[in-house]
Amino acid sequence: MELLTDEVVTAARERHVRLAITGLSQSGKTVLTTALVHHLLQSHKGRSLPFFEPAAQGRILSVKPIPEQCSFTFEQALAGLTQNPPQWPASTADLSQMSLAIHYRRAPGLGRLLGETATVYLDLIDYPGEWLLDLPLMHLDYAQWCQAQALLWQQSPRAELSAAWRQRLAQVDWFAPADDALLADLGHQYRALLQTLRGPDYGMSLLQPGRTLLPGHDDPEPLTLLFPVIVGVDDFSQQVPKNSALAEMKRRFERYRDELVKPFYRHHFARFDRQLVLVDCLKTLNRGEACFKDMQQALGEILQSFHYGQHSFLRRLFKPRIDKVVFASSKADHVTANQHHNLDQFLGLMIEDAQRQLRFDDIETQCMALASVRSTQAATADMDGQVLSCLKGYRKSDGQLVALFPGEVPTQLPEPNDWTDERFRFVDFAPVQLPTHDLQPQQHIRLDQMLDAVIGDYF
Amino acid sequence: MELLTDEVVTAARERHVRLAITGLSQSGKTVLTTALVHHLLQSHKGRSLPFFEPAAQGRILSVKPIPEQCSFTFEQALAGLTQNPPQWPASTADLSQMSLAIHYRRAPGLGRLLGETATVYLDLIDYPGEWLLDLPLMHLDYAQWCQAQALLWQQSPRAELSAAWRQRLAQVDWFAPADDALLADLGHQYRALLQTLRGPDYGMSLLQPGRTLLPGHDDPEPLTLLFPVIVGVDDFSQQVPKNSALAEMKRRFERYRDELVKPFYRHHFARFDRQLVLVDCLKTLNRGEACFKDMQQALGEILQSFHYGQHSFLRRLFKPRIDKVVFASSKADHVTANQHHNLDQFLGLMIEDAQRQLRFDDIETQCMALASVRSTQAATADMDGQVLSCLKGYRKSDGQLVALFPGEVPTQLPEPNDWTDERFRFVDFAPVQLPTHDLQPQQHIRLDQMLDAVIGDYF
Repeated sequence: MELLTDEVVTAARERHVRLAITGLSQSGKTVLTTALVHHLLQSHKGRSLPFFEPAAQGRILSVKPIPEQCSFTFEQALAGLTQNPPQWPASTADLSQMSLAIHYRRAPGLGRLLGETATVYLDLIDYPGEWLLDLPLMHLDYAQWCQAQALLWQQSPRAELSAAWRQRLAQVDWFAPADDALLADLGHQYRALLQTLRGPDYGMSLLQPGRTLLPGHDDPEPLTLLFPVIVGVDDFSQQVPKNSALAEMKRRFERYRDELVKPFYRHHFARFDRQLVLVDCLKTLNRGEACFKDMQQALGEILQSFHYGQHSFLRRLFKPRIDKVVFASSKADHVTANQHHNLDQFLGLMIEDAQRQLRFDDIETQCMALASVRSTQAATADMDGQVLSCLKGYRKSDGQLVALFPGEVPTQLPEPNDWTDERFRFVDFAPVQLPTHDLQPQQHIRLDQMLDAVIGDYF
Repeated sequence: MELLTDEVVTAARERHVRLAITGLSQSGKTVLTTALVHHLLQSHKGRSLPFFEPAAQGRILSVKPIPEQCSFTFEQALAGLTQNPPQWPASTADLSQMSLAIHYRRAPGLGRLLGETATVYLDLIDYPGEWLLDLPLMHLDYAQWCQAQALLWQQSPRAELSAAWRQRLAQVDWFAPADDALLADLGHQYRALLQTLRGPDYGMSLLQPGRTLLPGHDDPEPLTLLFPVIVGVDDFSQQVPKNSALAEMKRRFERYRDELVKPFYRHHFARFDRQLVLVDCLKTLNRGEACFKDMQQALGEILQSFHYGQHSFLRRLFKPRIDKVVFASSKADHVTANQHHNLDQFLGLMIEDAQRQLRFDDIETQCMALASVRSTQAATADMDGQVLSCLKGYRKSDGQLVALFPGEVPTQLPEPNDWTDERFRFVDFAPVQLPTHDLQPQQHIRLDQMLDAVIGDYF
């Protein structure tokens, strides 16, 4: 037998895994990260994560945060979830990281040659969902982006909302010298439009550029006021005077893409090993056809960027690292347990094409429904002499404790006539207080299965 | 290019596939065979089987039965299903075969070199479910079988029902010379026991030997009165006088196994290419724990016989042929569409171990819920302001047209306390009349997907 050098032994005893927790805005990334860390910190008790194998087998010896690498305000977020009444953490406004050292005993087998125990360093990276939508910009030039956006803004509700703004765009001479004040003004108006579309009345997903909605700390102002010229320029290929408004917009787009988007993905995305993509299917179904289709398109565009095609510079960035992507449909606690398969399946249908592409690229994918903090309990009702599964929980709208039938997850993508008379009306439940100690499996749904799918092979 | 000989061309233009339609007694094999043939005979119209690819693509040119190879009384069974009120065909009492010649156009591609059109000869083989349960006998000797049966007959309801018979067994001196009249009498009593257990009051599945319940045409009488000596012999390994009752029972068992069971499987089973196993999960759930566990055990034993282990003579018999087994949960029309995934999944859980073994042996397996004749239509009810999926159909018990919530398929194998207060009460619906012409997709559930999974690759 070959003797193992110290470095090999150290390398084998310490492994790093960087897990990106991604998802569109308000999909529950921060709550999930908080709950995940909370359960992991107690996983040596082997109680609350029965389907996370190393924890279930009692092989987790200790878990501790590595403070110098943590920018995620875990204590604050946890305090919100464990107070009474509990509070959801604020939306993610910047990139943040939570790092854990997980010391564990190896499973019986050959690995033991390298030592009885080992450590996995797990980095959970949470960042604004808005920024995820900049990913597709990386392989576009300004003309291509404007053309794609022109199509998008012709559809309802974008078309109605943007009428005044588009009228102003049409009056600009894009080949005349740039007027910085005018461009800033149009940029502010465009930002307001995106904010309205993201708001509760519309709930749209495909909102670009992401930093117009949520600028990063050090982003230069003009870049975060970037917008697409969707009217007023018929032919982007014609010669553009260097000092023209159009040339200025092109320059801003290229700087935005090359100075903000690309470095972000190079420094962060490119170093991810595993990827979790959170999707709130139920909320989107509730909001109706326009919202649903918009989210489907947004997911499609994001996932297409994962397509490491031969000509894509993304191939070079990603290929060596991410080898597993888990798609999770959040709020599984808002439907009954016997709808979970349908929720898994439904998410699969929503992202069918994207998933096929990932698999083609040898990236393992999986779809599952989960709830990082479980707000409901199972209940039953009698219906025609049969047992009907229901849910019990505090309704968000009025705070009442109710037991009710929460609705069915469709087994097919909705057809146009499925959207009539508010077909989908999933009830929103208020969060329940998470205990500080003695976490139990019933405080989540499948958080452990997700964890096992995403990083179980590291242990 | 090499020139193709006439034989090669003929071989390529004519392929045979033998599909075994198996399942426990009353799982719906005959109805399925009848419906399948009825739809296939109209499949050149490309209408009623949208998920059977060659039919959906309009490539089926003509389908005709081959009368000289058909022992299945198709016209009679079909007449029952198409009359008003419709009648389910009688149980299968013997082996029967239905052969079809399916003339089709090849899909565009290389295959076309061998000719534009080709023919698949499809043999559908239907045989009594009772006989399927003899499969496990093939790798047992009499002592092993008696010991397994002794355990079985200690459990309820077998234990109570068989008390008198077991008492008689205990009084026999099995080492004394055989008394043929006594053995015949005990055999008749045992047969009556099996008949009671199979009947509507108990609905048990694991009933051996199958030919005691349903003798074949030419089976010699003493062999079909075979029974296990489950009391009265403590040690099967001790020396047994040649003319003793026990020696006689051993001889009968060996003749039963070697003269009836083995040749049946050698002549039929060994020549099957594909296998469909029908299971009526819902009926078994309705009947309660004893019935459910008995069916699970019966399926397990049957499927274990598929295990082509190195020492099994079955390996030699099967290995070269069967390469795909589809498990179908019948009566999918008795639950709502959004329970179909759960029904697929539930069947998968019931036969999890067996399936794993098949996959290990490189046999493709799949579980799906289907209904060969659809007796219900989708309906909806309002429940807590939500749309609840229901079914509309004629209730079998009273013939009334009802719209009701038919109950939920469990997502896990039931635990002991799930069986309390009649948890499962799936409603039985009466069959609806099947049209003679103009079959539509809504007359079945997933019959086409099953067909595509089982034989689609032959076209």
